[in-house]
Amino acid sequence: MMLVSKESEVDVLIIGAGPAGLMCANALAIAGVNVRIVDQRPSKVPAGQADGIQPRTIEVFQSYGLAERLLKNGNQMHMAAFYNPSPSGGIERASRAADVTAPTARYPYEVTLHQGAIESIFLDSLKAHGVVVERPIVPTSLEISKSEEELKDPNARPVKVVLKHLDPPTNAGDSEIVHAKFVLGADGAHSWVRKTLGIALDGEQTDYIWGVVDMIPETDFPDIRNRTAVHSNNGSCMVIPREGDLVRLYIQLADRDVVDPDTGRVDKSKMGPEQLLDVAKKSFAPFQISNADGHFDWWTLYIIGQRVATQFSVNERVFIAGDACHTHSPKAGQGMNASMNDSHNLAWKLVHVLRGWAAMSLLKTYELERRKYAQDLIDFDKKFSKLFSGKPRTDTNQDGVSHEEFLDAFQTFGLFSSGIGVHYLPSTVVANQHQSVASKLIVGERLIPHDFIRAADARPFNIHDLLPSDTRFKVLVFAGNSAEAAQGKRVQALADEMARPEGFLATFGRGDHTKAFDVWAISSAKKEDVNYIDLPPLFRPHWSHVLLDDTDMFARTGGGGYDAYGIDKQKGAIVVVRPDGYVGIVAPFESLGDVDAYFAAFMIKG
Amino acid sequence: MMLVSKESEVDVLIIGAGPAGLMCANALAIAGVNVRIVDQRPSKVPAGQADGIQPRTIEVFQSYGLAERLLKNGNQMHMAAFYNPSPSGGIERASRAADVTAPTARYPYEVTLHQGAIESIFLDSLKAHGVVVERPIVPTSLEISKSEEELKDPNARPVKVVLKHLDPPTNAGDSEIVHAKFVLGADGAHSWVRKTLGIALDGEQTDYIWGVVDMIPETDFPDIRNRTAVHSNNGSCMVIPREGDLVRLYIQLADRDVVDPDTGRVDKSKMGPEQLLDVAKKSFAPFQISNADGHFDWWTLYIIGQRVATQFSVNERVFIAGDACHTHSPKAGQGMNASMNDSHNLAWKLVHVLRGWAAMSLLKTYELERRKYAQDLIDFDKKFSKLFSGKPRTDTNQDGVSHEEFLDAFQTFGLFSSGIGVHYLPSTVVANQHQSVASKLIVGERLIPHDFIRAADARPFNIHDLLPSDTRFKVLVFAGNSAEAAQGKRVQALADEMARPEGFLATFGRGDHTKAFDVWAISSAKKEDVNYIDLPPLFRPHWSHVLLDDTDMFARTGGGGYDAYGIDKQKGAIVVVRPDGYVGIVAPFESLGDVDAYFAAFMIKG
Repeated sequence: MMLVSKESEVDVLIIGAGPAGLMCANALAIAGVNVRIVDQRPSKVPAGQADGIQPRTIEVFQSYGLAERLLKNGNQMHMAAFYNPSPSGGIERASRAADVTAPTARYPYEVTLHQGAIESIFLDSLKAHGVVVERPIVPTSLEISKSEEELKDPNARPVKVVLKHLDPPTNAGDSEIVHAKFVLGADGAHSWVRKTLGIALDGEQTDYIWGVVDMIPETDFPDIRNRTAVHSNNGSCMVIPREGDLVRLYIQLADRDVVDPDTGRVDKSKMGPEQLLDVAKKSFAPFQISNADGHFDWWTLYIIGQRVATQFSVNERVFIAGDACHTHSPKAGQGMNASMNDSHNLAWKLVHVLRGWAAMSLLKTYELERRKYAQDLIDFDKKFSKLFSGKPRTDTNQDGVSHEEFLDAFQTFGLFSSGIGVHYLPSTVVANQHQSVASKLIVGERLIPHDFIRAADARPFNIHDLLPSDTRFKVLVFAGNSAEAAQGKRVQALADEMARPEGFLATFGRGDHTKAFDVWAISSAKKEDVNYIDLPPLFRPHWSHVLLDDTDMFARTGGGGYDAYGIDKQKGAIVVVRPDGYVGIVAPFESLGDVDAYFAAFMIKG
Repeated sequence: MMLVSKESEVDVLIIGAGPAGLMCANALAIAGVNVRIVDQRPSKVPAGQADGIQPRTIEVFQSYGLAERLLKNGNQMHMAAFYNPSPSGGIERASRAADVTAPTARYPYEVTLHQGAIESIFLDSLKAHGVVVERPIVPTSLEISKSEEELKDPNARPVKVVLKHLDPPTNAGDSEIVHAKFVLGADGAHSWVRKTLGIALDGEQTDYIWGVVDMIPETDFPDIRNRTAVHSNNGSCMVIPREGDLVRLYIQLADRDVVDPDTGRVDKSKMGPEQLLDVAKKSFAPFQISNADGHFDWWTLYIIGQRVATQFSVNERVFIAGDACHTHSPKAGQGMNASMNDSHNLAWKLVHVLRGWAAMSLLKTYELERRKYAQDLIDFDKKFSKLFSGKPRTDTNQDGVSHEEFLDAFQTFGLFSSGIGVHYLPSTVVANQHQSVASKLIVGERLIPHDFIRAADARPFNIHDLLPSDTRFKVLVFAGNSAEAAQGKRVQALADEMARPEGFLATFGRGDHTKAFDVWAISSAKKEDVNYIDLPPLFRPHWSHVLLDDTDMFARTGGGGYDAYGIDKQKGAIVVVRPDGYVGIVAPFESLGDVDAYFAAFMIKG
């Protein structure tokens, strides 16, 4: 018999406290949204699992003020190495290269840190905002109202979820009915939410079977601290150095011995970490590798599945994110990154709708932007897995994968796999009609990080640090050479026009536009000449908001920003950055009306 | 009647919990020394007081892992500005320049943060190491044993101090007899310890009288966020921007009205912050400056005294540090810096003696090094104060200070005032006979910060971050081009020689030389070629200890280190860095014997 102990209301209910769910919960909690997050696991992941954080994801962490701890506790992979069969038997190094090949990456490396440590970063941030993950709890039913009226009303709570407490003993078995405005299913590859909604997965399981071991190695292999791809005639391995002295080995398994013929799933009773290490040892010869202390921090076996959910939401009321939407191979280190970036994309949209600032239609852009990305990810993964799992080319195997082919693919895919190259197509929130005024700041891609100096005190800042994920649209007025008289007048005219009652600041600003819009001025004038107080007050809500495209006092950083963004140093441009850090629209001063129209397409007057 | 409630023993007793005392307590606590620190104030400084942290001091904070919070909470001064009388009356900007003029500064700016916030950084670190400042407590007597034998024995406790508790009421008036091995008097300009020891101050009071106000200004003055020197015909001011929107103004007072003729001291009842601001307003004209919220965060009046204690210790058993040893003007932002660097210099020496690693004679180098510095500081202050307080040169006052003269002095003194140029003269712990093998790494100065990459994973590090103030001597083996065969042999030969039983590692290593010596290898080979495992194991106690003088994968940093240090890229050199970050000796491989002799001069076998 089901015991129903209470009935409650919440704005957003998140099911699943893995990386996707936690990223969303944290973003909502910081924004002050009424949110709950539940998970079926009694505690966070203790070790192993996903562990690679890509350059773009580090930028996203930084936008929430969370990168510091990630960088302090994690390992950084700067260099990749490639080993191939040697003519004398065994393997030899073919080359070394940068691990990350995205030139604009602010953090030009991947960070590795076990999933539990990453979850802890979010859990501590959530706690500081008064949110605790409730666990162990499972959902047992989910219903969405059929009322069109309710579905259209952002203040309605059309989703009814029944939650069942599994622990502690005092309320085990208790159930609770939750009425939510929105629900996010971030409950993993076997997502209960996805299945309950009847959303199908497109794609299939592959033939690639891999083992993973985490351990502290004893070895004479000189690239054990680099991301190293080992292609040998005795199988393939990938070395992923981890926090402290830990190393992860991904080990290709040559046959299907570990698969249960009845279920098609991997049977972990058929092989243990010692046997996996024995397989790896054969690939590493003539180098020695063993387990320094006999302890395996974590291990697993898996078959790669490559699937994407056919839809990412039902009625923009229940969403799915992360592994619930897409599964793929872990070797390119994409899984956790894709998951967290899904909910980073969704969170600000939910906040704007919940606050009554944006129309419900804004939420449609989540599936539009993230499902396209997931499909690209699977395509990438298919090519990469095939290359990685393929036999190396040798004299006797001319059909094999050559080193050049592999290296070329590694570098071609680098922009994508770093997350830096993620590009959202034109939509309500991506308007690229004036792309040419900021030719290198691609609309639909993340703002390129760059160091500018503050006009008032010449202190350098990476612009990313000034534009956090605080749910505000960032309005960057690239003022051109504002110290020059004619341009100074154009800048003042723009300020006057932007301040009109019909302009977007007044129309959507609800009496204090600084809540939803954060305005900055970036001048191309030089630090010796410019006075921050000469910029129009609208563009400097605080003395700190006037930036210069100039070097710091020691010329160690800064300068070249207009060039890096492809903006004319005399004329300037308006750049609107979305709350998630992606460029929404760029426009010349003369086309301020198009910026007004951009916001009018999804924002609500008030 | 005095109540004596207990009698106790301690290794080090610190009297005074200002910046000098806290720096020492923290260093000793981290090293695991038995230390107590007492202060007469019931709580830490709430606002105002000293507030400028110089570039070298930031490096020292970083060496204890404390810079992060300082940089996060403090304001950074990157730019200086200079205003002089304008031909049309009032003032006008003469020029802007870098605030810091020391090109090797790792942090090329000064940080401003109120003294209480700086003390908090230490208090929290101390707490994490189990040490709490005991307060309010005053010493009432101090005696040093006359026994030569006791004074020579580092394990004896020849100093007897009586402490009196002032609060809480439950034990107010209680006294305690403390027997200490060493005592540090860090009890300020009116030091009870100094007076009790009968140590005189050399020097005198000046005629310069200044007022200070801390406030949030409302102003059209364009350099309010820069360190700005205002010379007007209506007096001089210095602008020091502070944390948040706070600004400090140092205001020259034109007459001696505020001095009590009987005591010669400033009488704070004669002038308040409003009057000080009125004086400042006259200097700032035609710019407007007022108090934005009517609140003054802090204010004071003072006459500059310029004095140095005749000795810094008695029998190397009781030391004085900070304001207890030297007083000077605050405008160059030196006071707190000199104080903390005094005890940073002393702390590791105390630790080595207390552990039985070094001879008592090592402690003599404290006065040798820091008193010379204090004298230089007073000389600097005299020149700087005179220039700053002098009338500006104008058509009618040709004897005044010209802008060029002031700017020139500002830049000449920059190396000194940044703390970067501090140079300890040759002594037991500063041996410069082989200076030429590292021609730019001046023996007796702090190790120049530089980015190197780690051979095993190409990750860049500033070498300062790898060499913390952990009481160990850092032995840096600049291995030259270790990938080249002949040099590889030289490096191996050096390792063999360094491992001899007669060598310093074995002689002073107490069975595990890594406790007192931290060995690193720095190769000039390139990251694509070098394998960290090819360096001799003695030089890589851990895989992370092999560095390369090469750029990171994106050529954003690193490289040029051998050149920056003036070390031959083929032949290399041995560099020994003291526990406080100062270069102790440099030597060619062939002169390892001189390195042995360096340590033998003050270390104890075992």
